[in-house]
Amino acid sequence: MKPVYFDNAATTPMRDEVVNAITEVMKNNFGNPSSSHSFGRSSKSLIEQSRKTIAGYLNVSAGEIIFTSGGTEADNLILKSAVKDLKVTKIITSKIEHHAVLHTVEALQKDFNITVNYVNIDKKGHIDFSHLESLLQGSEKTLVSLMHVNNEIGNILDLERAATLAKTYNALFHTDAVQSVGHYKMDLQDIPVDFLVAAAHKFHGPKGVGFAFIRKNSSLKPLVLGGEQERGLRAGTESIHNIVGLEKALKLAFNNLTSEMLYVKELKQYFINKIKTEIPDVKFNGDCVNDEKSTYTLVNVCLPVLPEKASMMLFQLDLKGIACSKGSACQSGSSKSSHVLAEILSEEDLQKPSIRFSFSIYNTKEEIDYVVDVLKTFIEH
Amino acid sequence: MKPVYFDNAATTPMRDEVVNAITEVMKNNFGNPSSSHSFGRSSKSLIEQSRKTIAGYLNVSAGEIIFTSGGTEADNLILKSAVKDLKVTKIITSKIEHHAVLHTVEALQKDFNITVNYVNIDKKGHIDFSHLESLLQGSEKTLVSLMHVNNEIGNILDLERAATLAKTYNALFHTDAVQSVGHYKMDLQDIPVDFLVAAAHKFHGPKGVGFAFIRKNSSLKPLVLGGEQERGLRAGTESIHNIVGLEKALKLAFNNLTSEMLYVKELKQYFINKIKTEIPDVKFNGDCVNDEKSTYTLVNVCLPVLPEKASMMLFQLDLKGIACSKGSACQSGSSKSSHVLAEILSEEDLQKPSIRFSFSIYNTKEEIDYVVDVLKTFIEH
Repeated sequence: MKPVYFDNAATTPMRDEVVNAITEVMKNNFGNPSSSHSFGRSSKSLIEQSRKTIAGYLNVSAGEIIFTSGGTEADNLILKSAVKDLKVTKIITSKIEHHAVLHTVEALQKDFNITVNYVNIDKKGHIDFSHLESLLQGSEKTLVSLMHVNNEIGNILDLERAATLAKTYNALFHTDAVQSVGHYKMDLQDIPVDFLVAAAHKFHGPKGVGFAFIRKNSSLKPLVLGGEQERGLRAGTESIHNIVGLEKALKLAFNNLTSEMLYVKELKQYFINKIKTEIPDVKFNGDCVNDEKSTYTLVNVCLPVLPEKASMMLFQLDLKGIACSKGSACQSGSSKSSHVLAEILSEEDLQKPSIRFSFSIYNTKEEIDYVVDVLKTFIEH
Repeated sequence: MKPVYFDNAATTPMRDEVVNAITEVMKNNFGNPSSSHSFGRSSKSLIEQSRKTIAGYLNVSAGEIIFTSGGTEADNLILKSAVKDLKVTKIITSKIEHHAVLHTVEALQKDFNITVNYVNIDKKGHIDFSHLESLLQGSEKTLVSLMHVNNEIGNILDLERAATLAKTYNALFHTDAVQSVGHYKMDLQDIPVDFLVAAAHKFHGPKGVGFAFIRKNSSLKPLVLGGEQERGLRAGTESIHNIVGLEKALKLAFNNLTSEMLYVKELKQYFINKIKTEIPDVKFNGDCVNDEKSTYTLVNVCLPVLPEKASMMLFQLDLKGIACSKGSACQSGSSKSSHVLAEILSEEDLQKPSIRFSFSIYNTKEEIDYVVDVLKTFIEH
């Protein structure tokens, strides 16, 4: 069996069309977009076309899309400038955010002495909206930062409800949508977020590029200073080929969204059914079996494996050619336990191995059969 | 005649081998380097191999190379953390630095109320070492930031002398070496800089990737917070293909350095001779005719053109298929006049058009003949 890649929430393989688009740009468009001559203008026009395409998919204006080196930089840009330049003195977030948000908020708390409140999370990993509303009381200048789709357990936040609630209390709203952009349609005229962040490599695009949606007249200031690129919001010569790759990946994601979503959804359901049948004592972390409240791309399972077998499990899966993730996508290397699962699992379940399997259009049911068969060996023997 | 690209200080075309190396990675190595499975390890090993190669060329250890999205981000990382985390309270720099340094220093001055001193520049654009030494007096924790090769006029700083002087006074030393890495050999065991910055797209590598050399035990902290990538100094999923492209470009630059340097040097000399012959009243800005004290890649000329013709000159050169730059590489779009030339030219010469022509291995003497012939038309008619 070919190696099985079930770690698509960590990163995805690039589509051939994206690779080709990037290669074309690398060969033909090398001018510096800040140069006024024809070479520069040709690069500039590629970037502006990409910006326009992306803005179109989100139903925002091109000027509201700022390219960055990825989701993490975009989160940093928004959160830091919100405190430093917009004079936000209170951030409401949750303990199950990505570290790009959590660590940035912690640093801001230390450096600027702002108030940080964490909204309660229920045992299924959903935020408590009435607690959020109570946290929104008061007159401090407030930013709410809640991710759209959780990268570890897949829970979907009702973004419209959360952002509307924040707006009711005059709070700014930021969402890390790295796991949802390219996977779901969204119309940012209906969803009153002020800031949103995406990364190309989560939807079969290149690594090292992402964007921030920054709603008009936000008065944010750049994190990276220097030239006047990205309307003064992000200095540094643009990674044109990566930006065009991002555009191409998003275009293909949206063009094929219905059929591909269906395909991956079926894979996930097949995995759930299969593992329930083969390993009846399996538990599903968060709300990942809920079709409506969880992304179609991932499941996070808690396996009834004895502690002595648990520690080497990921390693042994890897030996059998199975790539999946314990804890967070971007954390699997660090072998730290998951800060997300720590919030929602019982002490007992935290002792058992929890594994995230995340799917894409390049996966098959045969791979699922193989993986579940291998998982069974940890239970049975 | 094919369009002539004489703006290689702004950015360079990529070598075919670099494009191929990047394309290979995009096709074959998509794992997240933070993942512990085989897909992740394979990506991780590419990055670490690149780091090792680059470190080798600079004679430093691999752990001292931190990949970033480019030179600008690397400058920001170093300067901001030096003030915030290393408690630098005084920065000595010059008025002819790149905006990535100048604007960052200005922001730090405003935010942290640090002392900023600008070292004197002579009429040829060289720094005044005795003034630098006098500025280094005193007990404040000091960082010196001086670029190695000036991007507008090409002047080379005696890096070893400047860094050694800073060291004598216990000051930290940072250099933006974006115009010199890949163009000159350097041994950072001999040159006591603490921090150095490079960008791949200046030596026929990809845009959107660069690196910071950060000498061991510097105690810098990250600008971008989140995951533990780059030994905790730069969060965000790594742009693997870009990093491998950077490595490949640097490898090719060093492998071919002697012959390619000779080739480009001859082009520059040919340009100087030709323009002196054809336009005897031409002036050379900075010290760009000095073989030893100026980079072999660029000339910056002040042309005896009447004001009424000067304003449209770049535009008309562009119409004739000639890409060159007025003022700074990364500024040509903004049409602001050059902050570098403002420091060194007379009022009278500032009224005349100054143009930077910058060369690479892909240029020819025939192109120079063509360009000088076109330039003559502005003088004669």
